[in-house]
Amino acid sequence: MPPYLSVSRRTRRTPFTDRVTAAGVTAYTVYNHMLLPTVFQSVTEDYRHLKSAVQVWDVACERQVEIRGPQAAELAQMLTPRDLSEMKLDQCYYTPMVDETGGMLNDPVTVKLAEDRFWVSIADSDLLFWIKGLAVGYRLAVDVIEPDVSPLAIQGPQADELAARVFGDAVRSIRFFRYKRLAFNGTEFVVARSGYSKQGGFEIYVEDSRQGEPLWDALFEAGRDLDVRAGCPNLIERIESGMLSYGNDMTRANTPHEAGLGRFCDTRSAIGCVGRDALLRVAREGPLKQIRYLEIDGEAVPPCTEPWTVMAHGDVIGTVTSAAWSPDFSTNVAIGMVGRDFWEEGTLVELVTPDGSRAARVREKSWL
Amino acid sequence: MPPYLSVSRRTRRTPFTDRVTAAGVTAYTVYNHMLLPTVFQSVTEDYRHLKSAVQVWDVACERQVEIRGPQAAELAQMLTPRDLSEMKLDQCYYTPMVDETGGMLNDPVTVKLAEDRFWVSIADSDLLFWIKGLAVGYRLAVDVIEPDVSPLAIQGPQADELAARVFGDAVRSIRFFRYKRLAFNGTEFVVARSGYSKQGGFEIYVEDSRQGEPLWDALFEAGRDLDVRAGCPNLIERIESGMLSYGNDMTRANTPHEAGLGRFCDTRSAIGCVGRDALLRVAREGPLKQIRYLEIDGEAVPPCTEPWTVMAHGDVIGTVTSAAWSPDFSTNVAIGMVGRDFWEEGTLVELVTPDGSRAARVREKSWL
Repeated sequence: MPPYLSVSRRTRRTPFTDRVTAAGVTAYTVYNHMLLPTVFQSVTEDYRHLKSAVQVWDVACERQVEIRGPQAAELAQMLTPRDLSEMKLDQCYYTPMVDETGGMLNDPVTVKLAEDRFWVSIADSDLLFWIKGLAVGYRLAVDVIEPDVSPLAIQGPQADELAARVFGDAVRSIRFFRYKRLAFNGTEFVVARSGYSKQGGFEIYVEDSRQGEPLWDALFEAGRDLDVRAGCPNLIERIESGMLSYGNDMTRANTPHEAGLGRFCDTRSAIGCVGRDALLRVAREGPLKQIRYLEIDGEAVPPCTEPWTVMAHGDVIGTVTSAAWSPDFSTNVAIGMVGRDFWEEGTLVELVTPDGSRAARVREKSWL
Repeated sequence: MPPYLSVSRRTRRTPFTDRVTAAGVTAYTVYNHMLLPTVFQSVTEDYRHLKSAVQVWDVACERQVEIRGPQAAELAQMLTPRDLSEMKLDQCYYTPMVDETGGMLNDPVTVKLAEDRFWVSIADSDLLFWIKGLAVGYRLAVDVIEPDVSPLAIQGPQADELAARVFGDAVRSIRFFRYKRLAFNGTEFVVARSGYSKQGGFEIYVEDSRQGEPLWDALFEAGRDLDVRAGCPNLIERIESGMLSYGNDMTRANTPHEAGLGRFCDTRSAIGCVGRDALLRVAREGPLKQIRYLEIDGEAVPPCTEPWTVMAHGDVIGTVTSAAWSPDFSTNVAIGMVGRDFWEEGTLVELVTPDGSRAARVREKSWL
């Protein structure tokens, strides 16, 4: 059995926690000092349902850092090696964020709300502290705050149908990583086509905690015949989809290039990024190790709670950091980092797990 | 029943996690992205044992931010309104740390290792990000890293005896919030008289994760006749002791003065602290609300997982953020913040808990 979680004010509740509890959540993780559901019925049952119906996810833990003011765009560009200069007013960008050495501090989605106003929708680290530190140190004319905004995701094959019933048919024409401002209960919300699965869907940036329960209830009311259920980011599906998890698959020790995110690094044009100097060299020489997907032989692996060593010819050549049994692919799916001599498609490697040694095969692409 | 905790690499294990598991930990919280045990036998049984014997605590989650370099002392002073200019080389200071508005970002213990080298032993927030942001923005000649240092605490009435058996009688003369470098296994560790209880004891800053298990085992071997057990910060004892918890009892929204930490704010002399301007006004005018202790009538309160409202004469006048039944004081002990018109000793207030309304009495001092 896993351990229990002691909940206190510090492991913050969300506007949806009472609903999530009523829906039968059985396990959480803590993410940005906030409760993030991880299991309702079981990881496998939640997975089957996510892939066949539609779920509503409490991802309020994706906290926003709001950057606002005359130098907001300048500060946003300091944070990331992705070039933000062409970003449109209805766009969301996946933005690796790095320190002055090119080490990843977070991999948020940046939402452009106005020319002088951005939301940075963060993964699990106090990115607010880094942004505020830079703003103070560089004496920038910006305000940096955590607003009362709690994302709620709709994910699954029936996500468009469910979202349309509550926000209108306009949701259907929202393009990937774009957003529209759509009304619920007389209030407009940012509704983006995005989310931490490949089953399709939206993230609603719920402004004002008091709007949380009415919106949750409206979605469940509207989706009854769609078998809508409370869900959460699913370990199996996110590995099949190759979705990285900051803190699991990459940390401050890694560059975006090691994380396989080189395509989001416009190192030449992203002038102003504080990590640009460090990344110019990485971009030219390429990383020595990089994110790869692995198929692990044998029965279901145990939970991956610390990096597992990857070996080849008796040498340590990488680590696996996320792994789960995939019912749909009838194999163990995994994410790790592998050295450049061994990262080609199909390379056979050996994995050291708590249950003993396993054969594994390197993949360049994820399963979904 | 509380929910389960899903453990992944992101909820980092510590050098002691295998030992903690073997000792029968039943619940954790997540603190600085790391596992922090919260319960072994039960909160009440752990409490009785802590107060009567001696415990070894895995507090590796008190991560260190190391600040090193020619401008290390300057940067350290930028972080806190406490005057560090007279700090001695064997001293630890409790240091509220604030942003440019005087809002608390953390309440770490700062350890001075050399004139140009400090460890900041942090509570639950990524203070590293703030410190790095300032260092980059102000272009300071410092290096800011998270070293491989994992504190292990020895707490309880028999702590001196147990520590002396492993580190020698020199531990007995360590003064409160001072440290000595003492050898175990041929390696010197910083051993400080400090810890998150009022039962007495030490925190050992274990450098090099590989030293963790040998030291743990040596302490249990040496303490067998002292009934040494694995323990952890105890909710009841820490409230009785009036020890604040960052994220529970105060947040970024609060100044140190609101947290009752005005005595650690040398606002006149701590020139260089980035929050000094904001705090000068607070120091002069005093806060409008402040940390107080409360005795809550009636049977044991439920877990305090979000702020409970404190009322007087029908008005909201404060919140309670930590609460537990105290067997030794036969009452519910609590920590909260109360408005200045109601914070005097003995003021009767009304508390809104999930179980209904309770009478409560304000205290200026904690129980221990």
